[in-house]
Amino acid sequence: MSEAQVRADDRAHVFHSWSAQGLINPMPVEKAQGSHFWDYEGRKYLDFSSQLVNINIGHQHPRLVAAIQEQAAKLCTIQPAFANDKRGEAARMIAEVAPGPLNKVFFTNGGAEANENAIRMARLHTGRHKVLSTYRSYHGSTATAITATGDPRRWPNEPVAVGVVHFWGPYPYRSPFYASNEAEESERALRHLRDTIVFEGPGTIAAILIETVVGTNGILVPPPGYLAGVRAICDEFGIVFIADEVMAGFGRCGEWFAIDKWGVTPDLITFAKGVNSGYLPLGGVIISDEIAETFRERPFPGGLTYSGHPLACASAVASMQIFKEEGIIEHARMLGEDVIGPGLEQIKQRHPSVGDVRGLGVFWAVELVRDDRKTPLVPFNAAGAAAGPMTEVAAACKERGLWPFTHFNRVHVVPPCTTSVEEVREGLTILDEALTVADGFYTS
Amino acid sequence: MSEAQVRADDRAHVFHSWSAQGLINPMPVEKAQGSHFWDYEGRKYLDFSSQLVNINIGHQHPRLVAAIQEQAAKLCTIQPAFANDKRGEAARMIAEVAPGPLNKVFFTNGGAEANENAIRMARLHTGRHKVLSTYRSYHGSTATAITATGDPRRWPNEPVAVGVVHFWGPYPYRSPFYASNEAEESERALRHLRDTIVFEGPGTIAAILIETVVGTNGILVPPPGYLAGVRAICDEFGIVFIADEVMAGFGRCGEWFAIDKWGVTPDLITFAKGVNSGYLPLGGVIISDEIAETFRERPFPGGLTYSGHPLACASAVASMQIFKEEGIIEHARMLGEDVIGPGLEQIKQRHPSVGDVRGLGVFWAVELVRDDRKTPLVPFNAAGAAAGPMTEVAAACKERGLWPFTHFNRVHVVPPCTTSVEEVREGLTILDEALTVADGFYTS
Ligand SMILES: Cc1ncc(COP(=O)(O)O)c(C=O)c1O
Ligand SMILES: Cc1ncc(COP(=O)(O)O)c(C=O)c1O
Repeated sequence: MSEAQVRADDRAHVFHSWSAQGLINPMPVEKAQGSHFWDYEGRKYLDFSSQLVNINIGHQHPRLVAAIQEQAAKLCTIQPAFANDKRGEAARMIAEVAPGPLNKVFFTNGGAEANENAIRMARLHTGRHKVLSTYRSYHGSTATAITATGDPRRWPNEPVAVGVVHFWGPYPYRSPFYASNEAEESERALRHLRDTIVFEGPGTIAAILIETVVGTNGILVPPPGYLAGVRAICDEFGIVFIADEVMAGFGRCGEWFAIDKWGVTPDLITFAKGVNSGYLPLGGVIISDEIAETFRERPFPGGLTYSGHPLACASAVASMQIFKEEGIIEHARMLGEDVIGPGLEQIKQRHPSVGDVRGLGVFWAVELVRDDRKTPLVPFNAAGAAAGPMTEVAAACKERGLWPFTHFNRVHVVPPCTTSVEEVREGLTILDEALTVADGFYTS
Repeated sequence: MSEAQVRADDRAHVFHSWSAQGLINPMPVEKAQGSHFWDYEGRKYLDFSSQLVNINIGHQHPRLVAAIQEQAAKLCTIQPAFANDKRGEAARMIAEVAPGPLNKVFFTNGGAEANENAIRMARLHTGRHKVLSTYRSYHGSTATAITATGDPRRWPNEPVAVGVVHFWGPYPYRSPFYASNEAEESERALRHLRDTIVFEGPGTIAAILIETVVGTNGILVPPPGYLAGVRAICDEFGIVFIADEVMAGFGRCGEWFAIDKWGVTPDLITFAKGVNSGYLPLGGVIISDEIAETFRERPFPGGLTYSGHPLACASAVASMQIFKEEGIIEHARMLGEDVIGPGLEQIKQRHPSVGDVRGLGVFWAVELVRDDRKTPLVPFNAAGAAAGPMTEVAAACKERGLWPFTHFNRVHVVPPCTTSVEEVREGLTILDEALTVADGFYTS
């Protein structure tokens, strides 16, 4: 199909996510391989976005493609009430790498449905209704998930779901708690959470839902002690701890699950994206034995036609095998520790506009500012002209063959876990050049 | 993998939809082809359920499998903001078969997300909030979709989403309006809807969401004039008409869309299942030009990581091509008119327990009763022992190699659209035998 036809079909018939349909001009992508993708004019882009931070295994991994082809020939789908080899194997493999007594998996098609069902489980398990989640978060776009999301740009105009209360999570670089170091940030954030619970009424709260490492809203790495503190608060008040690992899990943080980094065990983990790198839609909830027990004789009131889809589950099985055999998680961890972390630190030294760099694994943010008072390079929630400087930074990357992930005043460095050291270095070099554009807006 | 291993993995690690996990014993399915699937002991089942009424093209259609394999080799996924050949082609092909000025497609992973997004569009388009949907309906299990669902067995214990009002749709066999014929049923159902709107306040109602032909909750075929009447009421009050064709669309009713049968054009159509027979998770919303226009310069606040998933879209493209080239829709229509309809009419004559048979295409219900006062064979929402008679009917089918779809006091006859005349006859013969079990509970 010609590029013109692809563009014409797109403009005439595809309604795009999160967009004003008349103000976008979607770029046709022709092919992708490993850490790169290509447009129809043969321009090659180094993918520092992993698409929507989901292609953890890289594009078109040959073994993963082969596994999909093989399963397609065998059995594409069968309904959720049956047992199926790949469905069971995927669930077993996920349970094996999940922390603690999290042994059962409820499969969904993506992250939003995973969070919807985790919240449903928590409510029925506790007999309580409220869910606490943070400002600066994204949990998906179905009614309860979008309400739990802490990002006004994503919210509908009017309330659509009930029972969500937002609190503030730790963010050392712009501390909501006026903390002067990480230990203080952790302690004060926990006090804020505990106070909020006490005033909402502990007996009304079913769950605390947090992204283990906040993704789209800033790669906010929790300070030491925070997650253990959340665990303790949940235990104290009988609240279900739901860790949203949709973006942070499956290698992104150099661990199977980001929470492993802190040795904490939540009650429910929600996942999607990296589990099979989105080669097919797949997500789910990993469930503790205690919560599973609640639904032993009492029906779980939730489901979907494609829960445990065999072709999707086969891709998860193959992906996890490849992760293990090719040491992909260890590679991602190494990239963070030895290449991206030090590389961004150097970039920060060189660019006044770089206010903060933070992250782990292949999950990093570069936060851009316009002065030494940390004024964001573009205002919060900027769109159109107000977002101009960031659009220019992104354009400078793209011109040089790097596809960045940008959000407000940040560039996220989120390449596939499989990106080579050389490719990462090449990308950082381009980013370094492009940030000169951001420096141009800096006034000291 | 051995059957024992499949069972062990399933019991240890898979959390199943809509179930008390300790009270189920999921049957391992080994393979499937055409209208059949097999367990691990070599037992072959004629699939009169199309799984969850989604395998419209039959199991493992060779051309569809090949198309998936081919696209997997080319490009499994790319994020929703890009243009992609298969994404655009699928959208174009869907728009081409959709009625009237419905020309844009917002892709989702399944039916629930399709309804969530259709409702979001309707709310933003109208600036109103309430959604009217019927009792006896299923729209999916995310917060807004499950709230719109009209089936108490599916509802969560407490309200989770806001703004849904339920009304009663037509059901000639058990008329909520004491109508004595279809014309009266239609007229009275429309009056009931109109009265409900007037009392709710027309200026508060964003959308009417109905299954064109109600699926899981009874294969309720709208009487002549009803859908045109709903269209007229929507026009009168500026309400968005959303037709949920997740189950009824893509051949199930012997039409591309069930609503074609009545020549009515809704504002939004939601689809999933039959669009690609669930070989990959895929669903979406087909959008009228007028509603799309609302989001030309105003961003649509909704999205998902896998919107317009290339591999899923490629399977939709191939499936629609196969439908056209193999005359699958015409075949489904013929099966309804010439084989299933007349066959079930004969079955009804022979079995006192058969109170009603109704349907079209490959979308039929056999409603079972225990006496001549139409008392349902099992009570509404029966579970466990109370559902015994239906469990026995289902078992009688399964013993004879027929896999039925049952719901309360009904057996649905919902085979793939591609089932041969002989296979359908064979299935009806088995059903005929099995219904002797139901007759045993009948008391005159
Ligand atoms: C942390 C997190 N949770 C949930 C979601 C929603 O996932 P999906 O888009 O598959 O519904 C996302 C998507 O970006 C996410 O980043
Ligand atoms: C009419 C209808 N709408 C919506 C849905 C929900 O679709 P999904 O299970 O893909 O979320 C279903 C599923 O059975 C359905 O039958």
